[in-house]
Amino acid sequence: MVDLKCNADFCLIPMGTESPSVSNYIAEVQVLMHGSGLKYSMHSAGTTVEGPWDQVMELIGKAHELMHKLGVQRVQTDVRIGTRVDKKQSFEDKVTAVEKILKE
Amino acid sequence: MVDLKCNADFCLIPMGTESPSVSNYIAEVQVLMHGSGLKYSMHSAGTTVEGPWDQVMELIGKAHELMHKLGVQRVQTDVRIGTRVDKKQSFEDKVTAVEKILKE
Amino acid sequence: MVDLKCNADFCLIPMGTESPSVSNYIAEVQVLMHGSGLKYSMHSAGTTVEGPWDQVMELIGKAHELMHKLGVQRVQTDVRIGTRVDKKQSFEDKVTAVEKILKE
Amino acid sequence: MVDLKCNADFCLIPMGTESPSVSNYIAEVQVLMHGSGLKYSMHSAGTTVEGPWDQVMELIGKAHELMHKLGVQRVQTDVRIGTRVDKKQSFEDKVTAVEKILKE
Repeated sequence: MVDLKCNADFCLIPMGTESPSVSNYIAEVQVLMHGSGLKYSMHSAGTTVEGPWDQVMELIGKAHELMHKLGVQRVQTDVRIGTRVDKKQSFEDKVTAVEKILKE
Repeated sequence: MVDLKCNADFCLIPMGTESPSVSNYIAEVQVLMHGSGLKYSMHSAGTTVEGPWDQVMELIGKAHELMHKLGVQRVQTDVRIGTRVDKKQSFEDKVTAVEKILKE
Repeated sequence: MVDLKCNADFCLIPMGTESPSVSNYIAEVQVLMHGSGLKYSMHSAGTTVEGPWDQVMELIGKAHELMHKLGVQRVQTDVRIGTRVDKKQSFEDKVTAVEKILKE
Repeated sequence: MVDLKCNADFCLIPMGTESPSVSNYIAEVQVLMHGSGLKYSMHSAGTTVEGPWDQVMELIGKAHELMHKLGVQRVQTDVRIGTRVDKKQSFEDKVTAVEKILKE
């Protein structure tokens, strides 16, 4: 067990699909995210999620499992994971901090 | 010269800074982005930008140069770059495509 | 629990360290990897490890915990994770497959 | 023009291919790397290359162009790029530095 909260931003890529369009698969992942109870946000280059390390990593693993259940034979995901112990910071706070500086 | 349009999502990390907080640096990068003329969007885990390959990559390089000018001795960036030739797709269209499926 | 084997390649970055050199920290991570029992390989841009999803992700989390114990206040890691269900493939097999094609 | 040397480690993923196996495509990228004159090294999770920023980024773009010429309609690449101004460091030196600490 890992005793840390984290922010993770992941970009999941189904491989060996017939079509280069993967929005159907990403929509399925979003349904999974919605059911997870964790705070998340989708953007054009990935999905950001925050929570306890183990839950976040299991959720991304569940997304891989889901892809395989849907017939995808190979899945490649890039994840950017951040942890910090100097302060609590939600992923939204990071954008707010930069915007505040830009306004000053 | 690379004759491709691309979407790039980059997460830039100044290394060897005294403080773990880097929002001041990220704000400087946002000013650079704003002056570039390229379409971009900041989120909590990076900045997405789209345009001709060479311009996008030069811009990210300029961000590294800027960090070094500000005294940062080492910079590490993770970039997710996508190109596609089957259709034109702005980074916003990717989110719209998924949201449309979710509504159906 | 995630019932998948995976290959993961991670690049861990301690943030807010006084020095831009982080090889001391990376050496500590290698000691952790060595003790894990999982198959791994360090290269100049990261460390590749393979095994059951949960064990691999916990190990990367333990690396974050270790950094924080050593006084690093913020850690950012980029991970590339691959799973496939069409065949078993060790990370070494991937290089061998490409080299075999290059020789033909 | 960007006046920096960099280390870049990239993992290129052809999307919408019929097969989940992409070693044929990666072999083509290796031929391209070989002809570039830049120093590079393939590993199981990507290819590391070093050189002037513009040349390195153009080379990765050429890899995308090559994929599209081979019929791949969409390509997604994850790149980890590092620049530092405190010292010259080849990508091999990074591994050596860690191994030296581990021996001590």
